[in-house]
Amino acid sequence: MVKDKLVVIGGDAAGMSAASKVRRAQPDREIVVFERGNHTSYAACGMPYFIAGQIETSDQLIARKPEVFREKQNIDVRIRHEVIEIDTEKKRVRVKNLGDHSKFWESYDELLIATGASPIRPDFEGIDSDGIFALSTLQSGINVFDYIEKNSPKRATIIGGGYIGIEMAEALLDLNMDVTLFDMAPQVMTTMDKDMTEIISEYMIEKGVHVYLNEKLEKFDSKDGRVDAVQTDQRKIEADLVILGMGVKPNSEIAKNAGIKTGVKGAIHVDKKLRTSVEGIWAAGDCAESFHLVKQEQTWIALGTIANKHGLFAGINLSGGDIEFPGVCGTAITKFQDLEISRTGLNEQEANEMGIQYESSMIESRTRSGYYPGSDKISVKLIAEKVSGKLLGGQIVGFSGSAKRIDTIATAITAGMSAQDLVDLDLSYAPPFSPVWDPVQTAARTLV
Amino acid sequence: MVKDKLVVIGGDAAGMSAASKVRRAQPDREIVVFERGNHTSYAACGMPYFIAGQIETSDQLIARKPEVFREKQNIDVRIRHEVIEIDTEKKRVRVKNLGDHSKFWESYDELLIATGASPIRPDFEGIDSDGIFALSTLQSGINVFDYIEKNSPKRATIIGGGYIGIEMAEALLDLNMDVTLFDMAPQVMTTMDKDMTEIISEYMIEKGVHVYLNEKLEKFDSKDGRVDAVQTDQRKIEADLVILGMGVKPNSEIAKNAGIKTGVKGAIHVDKKLRTSVEGIWAAGDCAESFHLVKQEQTWIALGTIANKHGLFAGINLSGGDIEFPGVCGTAITKFQDLEISRTGLNEQEANEMGIQYESSMIESRTRSGYYPGSDKISVKLIAEKVSGKLLGGQIVGFSGSAKRIDTIATAITAGMSAQDLVDLDLSYAPPFSPVWDPVQTAARTLV
Repeated sequence: MVKDKLVVIGGDAAGMSAASKVRRAQPDREIVVFERGNHTSYAACGMPYFIAGQIETSDQLIARKPEVFREKQNIDVRIRHEVIEIDTEKKRVRVKNLGDHSKFWESYDELLIATGASPIRPDFEGIDSDGIFALSTLQSGINVFDYIEKNSPKRATIIGGGYIGIEMAEALLDLNMDVTLFDMAPQVMTTMDKDMTEIISEYMIEKGVHVYLNEKLEKFDSKDGRVDAVQTDQRKIEADLVILGMGVKPNSEIAKNAGIKTGVKGAIHVDKKLRTSVEGIWAAGDCAESFHLVKQEQTWIALGTIANKHGLFAGINLSGGDIEFPGVCGTAITKFQDLEISRTGLNEQEANEMGIQYESSMIESRTRSGYYPGSDKISVKLIAEKVSGKLLGGQIVGFSGSAKRIDTIATAITAGMSAQDLVDLDLSYAPPFSPVWDPVQTAARTLV
Repeated sequence: MVKDKLVVIGGDAAGMSAASKVRRAQPDREIVVFERGNHTSYAACGMPYFIAGQIETSDQLIARKPEVFREKQNIDVRIRHEVIEIDTEKKRVRVKNLGDHSKFWESYDELLIATGASPIRPDFEGIDSDGIFALSTLQSGINVFDYIEKNSPKRATIIGGGYIGIEMAEALLDLNMDVTLFDMAPQVMTTMDKDMTEIISEYMIEKGVHVYLNEKLEKFDSKDGRVDAVQTDQRKIEADLVILGMGVKPNSEIAKNAGIKTGVKGAIHVDKKLRTSVEGIWAAGDCAESFHLVKQEQTWIALGTIANKHGLFAGINLSGGDIEFPGVCGTAITKFQDLEISRTGLNEQEANEMGIQYESSMIESRTRSGYYPGSDKISVKLIAEKVSGKLLGGQIVGFSGSAKRIDTIATAITAGMSAQDLVDLDLSYAPPFSPVWDPVQTAARTLV
């Protein structure tokens, strides 16, 4: 049953993946996309590398521009248009044109909410000073880049040791800044276990980052409206550039206000078909929940891969298909300089919270055969259910060639494999690529 | 039930893995290992890189030397001792001391045959000339190295475009030789499909290797007992060094002569517990069969990973354990210079031979996000059963970061996943590691 007019709120990964999928399946359908920013379909994950100067222009981060969607795909993309209200009764959205500030109603037959997530920007004294940035939209990345070009900051402080914090630490070191990173947690990368993250923070310190843990933000000092220092509960850190990496929250306010059910961490509740609680309204990407395949419950993870998958699956269902998005494992990957970092499934804390009896093992091995040039350290941690041996989670920290091995673990976890099953796997070996026993199998061997 | 005396024939990967495992489980058991060569536990796969001069000494390829096994593990390893007969009635083996040529009988309670495989060296005219080498034992690699040191050959010809052929082409180019490689097959890497291997052979040609396909060896010319040229059915190739990469055969003769059942390609037949047809006699490694998880039948694949796994599993069972080695997928990996190559499961020819209705898809993607520095080409081919979509095989050819992705496919195949299941997987993404859709998923998407 093909519905008439599709309206999409949000023109990034999830929204445009869905719109493109619908267009391919339904060449004549009316599709309108409202995007409050200036850009569509951009790679937010590429921003730290753009800021570092590794990517020449911000345009390279854009997969497809609004005019291309309009001209080549006949998708009516309207940038700088913010949807401010959803009227589920009358099936219409209230739109604000951010150019001329006019407002209007736009009707829909089906609606996809793909509003993404926004950085958390808590209300600390001085947080609105110039020179304090959070990364979210492509524009926010361009703003950081422009600020650095114009003001040549020398001392950068990053608040938060998660993915953005670690990637920005690399980027700002590349720009020869004196970089401080602090976090209120006792470790960086709180999605991983402390034993694994110590390798990361030690390496960051070795490479020149001042890392302070267990340290709380108190306020920002500024001079002439521009940030000058960050005050924590332990010290004052002079800074002329501050990056907030304090996490993100789903942009679900308009959905909630319209009576659409929200769930985990305020994200829009969706079923496996990406349907919200209101018929004819779908949600996808960073604003929406997913199902966690290991926890077997709803979760909320804001990541580009998931947003793209959501968009594809929602697009299939919106254009007459019938497909379920089975869920996620919480797989993620990043790096600090040449140290690669990845994780999937449950970490120890998550396993404890679920009351699961588990065993864990952390091993150190080599990325390649020990004698092969370029062979370097890799640490692998696995967590498996006691008795059954069923794999619950994995974490990897190591040098070139390490982190992508997490995909093998994610695949094994999704398949319900045990540590023994992982030992049994016929994984690839040649000296330039691996020791005879791949490090993920070496870790598994200690659990059987 | 712990048996008394264990005799192992063969002191490389499978034999010594098993012996070590037994020693850990049974500290007091008598273990005797007969190895006809000079070395134990060496990385045969590392030889091309040793010959190329990338690894300083051949000792670095040795994981553990005979004296270490004797002194630290109390394993009675006797090198330069060849077992020439197995007497299954009297439970004893006839051993020839290759030093003093004496012969003696050694009794056993349990016997493990881990005799490995040998290169095929067909009876062509002139094949015994100096300068013609096959690679098998560590000694054979040292012989090539020494020959090159002493004779400084300028023109090398490699016969066979398989793993050894490709790796030796890289090694000999590194040594500034003029390298020719030919194969009677219409492609290199016959474990893969022609469309994928064309990327490899074209790259080899681009890098200076003269590659001739569909070309048959006829004879070797020699001068003063030293090879001078290789004659094919198409041309004469001047050569002062020849590497035979014409495949290997299992060293199963003594087993066969003792009435032990052999199977696929003459390899020793074993069940999943690595037991041969004769009670109390086990076989492991390159001389023994494995079970093919996709073909669901016995197979024979001579690879270091499998040999190590065989050894471990045989060792567990020999020391009172009870474990099955489920089988292999035929996963393999190699590289030519910076071009990485891997495969797993069935290729099209194998699927055809089995009469399977399949679909295949070959895509080109990027190793990293397109805009990220160092992003390069990767081609992925997937083969899936028609109707069910069940994954049967995968092949990868591409630049840095490409080939190890085969492990994800191997894991998915082992788990019985379909192409859709592979699309659904939560694989890792960040710009330095992958496009948003990992290339293996991009390939899978074309099959659903």
